[in-house]
Amino acid sequence: MDQRPLILVTNDDGIFAPGIRTLVEEVMPFGRVLVVAPDKPQSAMGHAITIHSFLRLHRTDLLDGVEAWSCSGTPVDCVKLAIYKLLGGSKPDLLVSGINHGANISINVLYSGTMSAAVEGAMEGIPSIGFSLMDHAIEADFSQARPVVRNVVGNVLRHGIPMGTCLNVNVPKSTGEPLKGMRVCRQAKANWEDEFETRLDPGRKEYYWLKGEFRSEDQGHDTDVYAVENGYVSIVPTQYDMTAHHAIAQLNTWDHAVG
Amino acid sequence: MDQRPLILVTNDDGIFAPGIRTLVEEVMPFGRVLVVAPDKPQSAMGHAITIHSFLRLHRTDLLDGVEAWSCSGTPVDCVKLAIYKLLGGSKPDLLVSGINHGANISINVLYSGTMSAAVEGAMEGIPSIGFSLMDHAIEADFSQARPVVRNVVGNVLRHGIPMGTCLNVNVPKSTGEPLKGMRVCRQAKANWEDEFETRLDPGRKEYYWLKGEFRSEDQGHDTDVYAVENGYVSIVPTQYDMTAHHAIAQLNTWDHAVG
Repeated sequence: MDQRPLILVTNDDGIFAPGIRTLVEEVMPFGRVLVVAPDKPQSAMGHAITIHSFLRLHRTDLLDGVEAWSCSGTPVDCVKLAIYKLLGGSKPDLLVSGINHGANISINVLYSGTMSAAVEGAMEGIPSIGFSLMDHAIEADFSQARPVVRNVVGNVLRHGIPMGTCLNVNVPKSTGEPLKGMRVCRQAKANWEDEFETRLDPGRKEYYWLKGEFRSEDQGHDTDVYAVENGYVSIVPTQYDMTAHHAIAQLNTWDHAVG
Repeated sequence: MDQRPLILVTNDDGIFAPGIRTLVEEVMPFGRVLVVAPDKPQSAMGHAITIHSFLRLHRTDLLDGVEAWSCSGTPVDCVKLAIYKLLGGSKPDLLVSGINHGANISINVLYSGTMSAAVEGAMEGIPSIGFSLMDHAIEADFSQARPVVRNVVGNVLRHGIPMGTCLNVNVPKSTGEPLKGMRVCRQAKANWEDEFETRLDPGRKEYYWLKGEFRSEDQGHDTDVYAVENGYVSIVPTQYDMTAHHAIAQLNTWDHAVG
């Protein structure tokens, strides 16, 4: 029996995106690979799961020697189906998600299907990593992400990840200059200035398209935004405990009498 | 011009759920109310937003004196459309989401559309509260949640909420006994033991339905699970900074040389 680590690979751009193929190529030397990824783009699906409908899995050819399945659901559905359907409840040794076509820095961790799959892995106690390249293009150049994947996966297989956390890894877009290195960061404080473009359908009824502009006014040099803007790979340890522990004392001063 | 606070109301069970009607009734005495809620159930949609399709809004009758819109998207889409389409970019004074039919304790904060709408409000700098009743039934008895809404909304309008956080409020199911009070808590450590029920369609092809069992082995008396199981309302201050700050030092010991 093959004793090498079992590595589960997923993403949110869909199983036929170049990013996931790159990721599979880079993790294959580390162990056995199982791919379960969405059958269509699922960007910005966050931590959504499918409970009002059913799910399908289809066996798919991706790369020689790799068991690959496309899934009708969200990235988090893919993680759940991999563990509880295909693996019969046993956990893989590592989960990697991506490589996303586009950045998942700062608050985008909340919207990102790529990162939500990694968070789901952490909730299952699996060392989990989300990788993103800061280039949305389908023909994005992933060459500079490849050594990053090898380094981070190697480190995680050697050292593990602190319990309750996963890693959010963002790689700057290729500029011709070599990467300056990697930085462990905090999630920058930032926000989206949203806008809806209003259009009229042929029946003259309005419909709306979301457009937004990402704004970071966080001046810290310890943030993921600062790192990637200055030629570094950012690594943010990301947790699923969303409790604002610092706020508990303040809220305890309220009058909580009910009625 | 009406100078009372503007209160935005949304949910994930859909605009016609009894829970949102109860919530609107209870917040109306505090200010002007704007309702923007999904036109169909959107439970477990997490922080999903709609970027690969367009959105619609339809003016809807809900309660006299209340401006109400149903939205074709997710709970987070509702918040964005309310602010950036209906309010022209200005922010409401308060956002309330729910009352959810079913609990959103512990890690369910990540899957919950109700709570994701509140988290989105916090990201926009709006004091935001998600309310949930621990009863999934459409005919759930919300009477014991009503004074909880009045208390928490009153407190938030008086005191605000620490920046970067929102509140996750869960009310036990009615048992005939009065509530014991409210407790400010942390999110319990828990997990879902998932399972997929396999069925065959008429063409003999498999499809899968997610079923899961929620398991908390967290023994702490300061958790939301402990509070609601012991007759208290739980209030968890919830933040969107997902950085595991405690893990940064450990990750800095790794060899981060790329190449």
